[in-house]
Amino acid sequence: MERDEARRRFAAARVARLGTVTPQGRPHLVPVTFAVLDIPEPDGSIAFAVDAKPKTSRSLQRLRNLAEHPAATLLADVYDDDWSRLWWVRADGTARIVDHGPDFDRALDELSAKYPQYQAQRPAGPAVLVAVDRWRGWAAEEG
Amino acid sequence: MERDEARRRFAAARVARLGTVTPQGRPHLVPVTFAVLDIPEPDGSIAFAVDAKPKTSRSLQRLRNLAEHPAATLLADVYDDDWSRLWWVRADGTARIVDHGPDFDRALDELSAKYPQYQAQRPAGPAVLVAVDRWRGWAAEEG
Repeated sequence: MERDEARRRFAAARVARLGTVTPQGRPHLVPVTFAVLDIPEPDGSIAFAVDAKPKTSRSLQRLRNLAEHPAATLLADVYDDDWSRLWWVRADGTARIVDHGPDFDRALDELSAKYPQYQAQRPAGPAVLVAVDRWRGWAAEEG
Repeated sequence: MERDEARRRFAAARVARLGTVTPQGRPHLVPVTFAVLDIPEPDGSIAFAVDAKPKTSRSLQRLRNLAEHPAATLLADVYDDDWSRLWWVRADGTARIVDHGPDFDRALDELSAKYPQYQAQRPAGPAVLVAVDRWRGWAAEEG
């Protein structure tokens, strides 16, 4: 799948799964709402936020992981029992945690533009910006 | 979420996302079809297979990762624009790659029972069995 098509499908998805590595070197996965920021870097950035839910140890694990190992991967996929409709897109990059400033404000603006829930209650943050260095995509229809 | 409920929801899902760690220590994610094997260990095992698609370097990355770092995590989740319907379940465990023998046959039997596509064309394998040591689940409805 071409990079632009991969990025387009990913940006339109409503949920992605964030993969990180724990300080102990284990894989960790959690679903995230996200927005793709259309910034002038070649591959752009993906933003997600820690929302207003109670910050249990579980919800902060992703931040502890990224503080130690900033490599992040995000996957959007569609499953259908008709396997000719399957596709997925993966974005690999490097994460940066931000809790104030223009990048933080921009991330929250884009998230609020995508999800009405965030308009009603703006995430407290912090936010994470993943600078993407590779988009990979696969679609069954492409063979 | 109780462990049995987490396991039940996970087993009924049609797709999960597999998180592994690359030899270089980066997170890696790919969607997988899978079956939960009801074996007499406390937490059971999850099986998935490399199917009959051409084995490009991409489709084997997961096996290279697991050969080096057998820690695996699998996530099943439901997204809905009504966020009161969100839930996810994550299974953390240790992977073992099998390409013949009773465990391999059993994995393929269970996968074929779940997915008609595998009845029409049995996966060539290998298969991966993840011995689960932790089920974690979250549902918005539980608060």
